[in-house]
Amino acid sequence: MDARIDIERLKSDLEELGRIGHDAAGGISRPSFSSADMEARAWLRAKIEAAGLAYRQDGAGNQFGRLEGRGKTVMAGSHIDTVLNGGMFDGAAGVLAALECLRTICMYKIPVTRPLEIASFTDEEGNLVGDFLGSRAFLGLLDRDEIATGRTAFGPPLADILKNTPFSVETILDAHKTRPELEAYLELHIEQGSLLEEEGVPVGIVERIAGKRYRRCSFIGRAAHAGTTPLELRQDAFLGLADFALKATHHVAARHYGSMVTIGRVVLHPGSFSVVPARADFTFEFRSPDAAELQALETELFAIASDTASSRGLGFASKEVDKTTPVAAAPRLVGIMEEECRALGLLSMKMTSGAGHDAQILAAACDVGMIFIPCADGISHSPAEMIGWDDLEKGANLLLRTLVRLAA
Amino acid sequence: MDARIDIERLKSDLEELGRIGHDAAGGISRPSFSSADMEARAWLRAKIEAAGLAYRQDGAGNQFGRLEGRGKTVMAGSHIDTVLNGGMFDGAAGVLAALECLRTICMYKIPVTRPLEIASFTDEEGNLVGDFLGSRAFLGLLDRDEIATGRTAFGPPLADILKNTPFSVETILDAHKTRPELEAYLELHIEQGSLLEEEGVPVGIVERIAGKRYRRCSFIGRAAHAGTTPLELRQDAFLGLADFALKATHHVAARHYGSMVTIGRVVLHPGSFSVVPARADFTFEFRSPDAAELQALETELFAIASDTASSRGLGFASKEVDKTTPVAAAPRLVGIMEEECRALGLLSMKMTSGAGHDAQILAAACDVGMIFIPCADGISHSPAEMIGWDDLEKGANLLLRTLVRLAA
Repeated sequence: MDARIDIERLKSDLEELGRIGHDAAGGISRPSFSSADMEARAWLRAKIEAAGLAYRQDGAGNQFGRLEGRGKTVMAGSHIDTVLNGGMFDGAAGVLAALECLRTICMYKIPVTRPLEIASFTDEEGNLVGDFLGSRAFLGLLDRDEIATGRTAFGPPLADILKNTPFSVETILDAHKTRPELEAYLELHIEQGSLLEEEGVPVGIVERIAGKRYRRCSFIGRAAHAGTTPLELRQDAFLGLADFALKATHHVAARHYGSMVTIGRVVLHPGSFSVVPARADFTFEFRSPDAAELQALETELFAIASDTASSRGLGFASKEVDKTTPVAAAPRLVGIMEEECRALGLLSMKMTSGAGHDAQILAAACDVGMIFIPCADGISHSPAEMIGWDDLEKGANLLLRTLVRLAA
Repeated sequence: MDARIDIERLKSDLEELGRIGHDAAGGISRPSFSSADMEARAWLRAKIEAAGLAYRQDGAGNQFGRLEGRGKTVMAGSHIDTVLNGGMFDGAAGVLAALECLRTICMYKIPVTRPLEIASFTDEEGNLVGDFLGSRAFLGLLDRDEIATGRTAFGPPLADILKNTPFSVETILDAHKTRPELEAYLELHIEQGSLLEEEGVPVGIVERIAGKRYRRCSFIGRAAHAGTTPLELRQDAFLGLADFALKATHHVAARHYGSMVTIGRVVLHPGSFSVVPARADFTFEFRSPDAAELQALETELFAIASDTASSRGLGFASKEVDKTTPVAAAPRLVGIMEEECRALGLLSMKMTSGAGHDAQILAAACDVGMIFIPCADGISHSPAEMIGWDDLEKGANLLLRTLVRLAA
């Protein structure tokens, strides 16, 4: 097969979409169901229809463009929502590369048997009630309470935000009922890290997507006068946290290479110059591409926290606030993508995704595979997000050939 | 001399004053120039006059009660303002013990030559423009800009708060002009630590009052995605702070026993679950009873911070926001107090004050000495502040005998 995607057409699409939702801080703010998102949805629908695909939208606002066929559906996509003050490639590159692939298949009349669909999932970024609202709705994995009663990150309940849309809590909960039987799901995405760039490799083939745990934790000590309480008599909650942060990071770096641990937010109480902190609250997240390792991490890090607390006369408390499960890409898809890289003469490397993606959710329904392309300096979720168009062309041609193989 | 103070009368005074300025949180909120403080000032004036002392108030609101004599004045006092939601002993114990001593001297007609004064200094707690407003005004150490232009901790400029009082920026700046020549200043105070209680000693004789440095500092790194940025490639500002906090504390504990170092407040930026912190802002205070050691601490701790930053690829920035100088009690006064303890059969110990006191300021004008009494569990600046009345009786009798010796 000699057909190739048209990178100029794909570039033009990305630039058009990138003009929707520009914010005052020089980035793109297009959270799902915002007016910018509604404008982007209308734009995507027009593009899908102009490509000659059958447009469909489900009850969760997930958008699809379908090329009919026989048997289970081969799907490719990502999302077009963004974080606040984000960039123009995270999500959009995957949706529009998939659209370009289906356009190319139509244009060159490349023979395929199975139905092919592009997908754009709602609120992958979790601006509303948590990550992956659309793909979780598509899989029927949502809990009514989660979306009916919780407040969104913006404040108002989801039901209030949905008032300006054709959707409701009920239509979201029912969205999975219209899902076609899936053969496979493919997603092209910017890496959001700097490995490909550092290695000078244009295409990454994802083997695993890391799972994560988000916990809110506290070390609990005793407030004391900073001028009169000798160091050896203090129960300083912050020093407990400092000790734990270094030990936990060292443990993960030394024993769980490839896993991650991050403390991103700290609040000390009472929080003044001259009072020894009585309590140190902090966010604690850790990730691993392997489910057993993630569980081991949780056990081991908790033991380190408990030891640190008891050796310093402190208490330790911890509460899970979010979690996702690590997922493996289907070896069959990894194999096909490696073969197609060779056919295209592309250098590629197998890698792990530390970030979460809709593919992680789709893995509950079918084989999934992901193609990473480099992003400049590993930067994402920022107006500075940038790619090389050459890399996108290579990644999109790999996506095209993989889709054609799977739908043959 | 067999005369002793009347602890029941002193207790009754402390309990009366402790009823002025009760707050909703069960403590005492009596910042200087608040209506509660104005009520307390009127109460103190009446007590001074009832004791037959000559009442005087200077332009900074410092209150005095004088027993006339010949030569330089021997002064004893403290303050009656409190922190917000403070207790009934911090400051008040020293002022009312001094009052009780002068009452005792009058009642028993104990022969003294020099004039004796009790003093109650304005805003020792620094609720307005910084610690020790009254005693600094008394010494002529205030800067016009400091009190004329700065905002108070409550928000409005000092001049606005003074509108409800007989005082102004001008009268405060001129207050030192009415200061008598001083022979010595003595201050009884609760320890605000737990050494006396732990050692079972009723009276502490302060040898040195620690000086301190308050700095606002930051480690500066680089924000990064917590899922995709390998631990070894991060410039995590918080891990820099954690490392520094442990090293700085260890250094002070190992090399500067008796000095203090405290990180009381931390803010991470951007401050979310899944972003490696780009910046860690923190308050940093350290104290030492010795001026040369305090300077050495500053140099050494700054070197540790710089080393920590450079070994982790971080920046470090630091800005001084307040400082006080360490002060030594006059060896002559320490000697007299030790002799009088023996005469009274009192167990005593020499100690360092980690907290700051008006005596520290008065040291610029005359010999100073301090008597500490134990406070329960070392707690101060809290509604839970408590003392043993026996200990107060012992401390006040030591104050009485020391005043009589100095004024002889």
